[in-house]
Amino acid sequence: MSSAPSADQTFAQRLADAAARVEARLQHHLEASGPTYAGSVGPAPRRLSAAMQHAVLGGGKRFRPLLVIESAALFGLDVAHALDTAASLECLHCYSLVHDDLPAMDNDALRRGRPTVHVVYDDWTAILAGDGLLTLAFDILARPATHPDPGVRADLVLALARAAGAGGMVGGQAYDLEADKLGVPALPDRDHIRRLQAMKTGALITYAVEAGAILGQAAPDARAAIKAYGDHLGFAFQIADDLLDAEGDAGTVGKAVGKDTAAGKATLVSILGIDAARGKLAETEAAAIAALAPFGARAATLKAAARFVSQRKR
Amino acid sequence: MSSAPSADQTFAQRLADAAARVEARLQHHLEASGPTYAGSVGPAPRRLSAAMQHAVLGGGKRFRPLLVIESAALFGLDVAHALDTAASLECLHCYSLVHDDLPAMDNDALRRGRPTVHVVYDDWTAILAGDGLLTLAFDILARPATHPDPGVRADLVLALARAAGAGGMVGGQAYDLEADKLGVPALPDRDHIRRLQAMKTGALITYAVEAGAILGQAAPDARAAIKAYGDHLGFAFQIADDLLDAEGDAGTVGKAVGKDTAAGKATLVSILGIDAARGKLAETEAAAIAALAPFGARAATLKAAARFVSQRKR
Repeated sequence: MSSAPSADQTFAQRLADAAARVEARLQHHLEASGPTYAGSVGPAPRRLSAAMQHAVLGGGKRFRPLLVIESAALFGLDVAHALDTAASLECLHCYSLVHDDLPAMDNDALRRGRPTVHVVYDDWTAILAGDGLLTLAFDILARPATHPDPGVRADLVLALARAAGAGGMVGGQAYDLEADKLGVPALPDRDHIRRLQAMKTGALITYAVEAGAILGQAAPDARAAIKAYGDHLGFAFQIADDLLDAEGDAGTVGKAVGKDTAAGKATLVSILGIDAARGKLAETEAAAIAALAPFGARAATLKAAARFVSQRKR
Repeated sequence: MSSAPSADQTFAQRLADAAARVEARLQHHLEASGPTYAGSVGPAPRRLSAAMQHAVLGGGKRFRPLLVIESAALFGLDVAHALDTAASLECLHCYSLVHDDLPAMDNDALRRGRPTVHVVYDDWTAILAGDGLLTLAFDILARPATHPDPGVRADLVLALARAAGAGGMVGGQAYDLEADKLGVPALPDRDHIRRLQAMKTGALITYAVEAGAILGQAAPDARAAIKAYGDHLGFAFQIADDLLDAEGDAGTVGKAVGKDTAAGKATLVSILGIDAARGKLAETEAAAIAALAPFGARAATLKAAARFVSQRKR
């Protein structure tokens, strides 16, 4: 595996390759959750299946699934043995987007350059499609095909539930909406924003790389190292997202921009200013890469992922 | 264990006893999912925790948790070893109520005699509280404290996800809302209504008794017998629910009644008429009790549960 500068080009190719494999696997799982779903009580309604497919298929960078795959590779697993776990995480990520986009929440009509689920269908279909995807994420993780050791499967379920629940992603979104809709807290500070971010965005990114370590039954110190990487990466991801909202173009970004500024929303960018936020982003990228030191050259793709996050345009 | 007629009085007592234990366990899990939640990324927002607690605590018959406990008892487990699985199921059941009650869905303001979550808080809080409870249900199941064998925990997760997902409860709710809001299908028949019911209500009741068999690592034939009981019981539950909607009083039932008739909704009661529906209910109750034959007198409480379902007033 080569190192930078060619690693960045390699990274784009690896992301595209992983996205294609994850897309095929998601298609399999979502079609299987329709009328032919073996373990179901009955066939899912066509409208619900179609809404779940709209939410998941045909878009998205599949960045979180790539992290699962690359982290699992560090611990000796080939892509085929990480693909279901990667697909499960994407189902969970997409559920969160469907619910967050609802009129009662962030009220977004555009996502990944396409109309959101509640725009194509309606609110009740979007709520249920999200519920179905969240449930499907755990369904996939618990299947024997995901990993032969049930202890690994149970650990994956537990780690995902912690990352995604009220003490993680759902809690972070609730803090965010409290600020947006209720003006709580009145005077947000950096610590509050940092915590909100760690829960809302960071938790799932950290889970992505931890999932690879769980799948690969990594030793505790290696799992701690990859978790530290994930924490920095998640923070970098959120700063970059805030910068894109402040500076990006909706056509390129694929969703509405300028919303934070219009809403007077407190982000690290609004508190620090754009230049200082860029500095913080570079510093966080470096910390993410440093956390990978124990893995040496084998972590080249994950290092490139950190550069990708801080340079992304959408 | 004594048989009928005193079994019905015993049943009321057992239901009350189980409800008290489940309530305490739910309180533990919901308080633990707040600021002191050990495995969380950060503390859940107080508003979100309070909404989750409002949704779950201080109401409900805890009928599904009782089924878990009594089914597990058939396979040799004492109540302490079934309590987390029972509490997990109640979290999942309550999430479904919170989402179903939303204005975008069934638009109910009253539940268990109290204002619904979106009425006390607002829609976004209710959506996130439901998401948090669904995630917490899987979190609890995956914890080592729930069962020492990770294979059992993974099986519980899989069975719950199948029962609750797009091929189960969520799919059943989607069929129901298609009928209510979109007039699909134009001419509902008994088979469609039966399938909708099996997914929407039956799946979780069947899971409740199967969960006891999974916890108790039951032999396949015993698991099949308890599943057959669950299927009949779930059907009886839905017929009784439709009868309560047609004939009940909101003050006694604890939620709005007469909604099906007002909406011109097709139910087995509207298709068969009240008398024939009562006949079907008695027949289904008998089938549920017959399915328990292999367990003999040890299944007295589950037999009483079938009588309770067909005679319930709320």
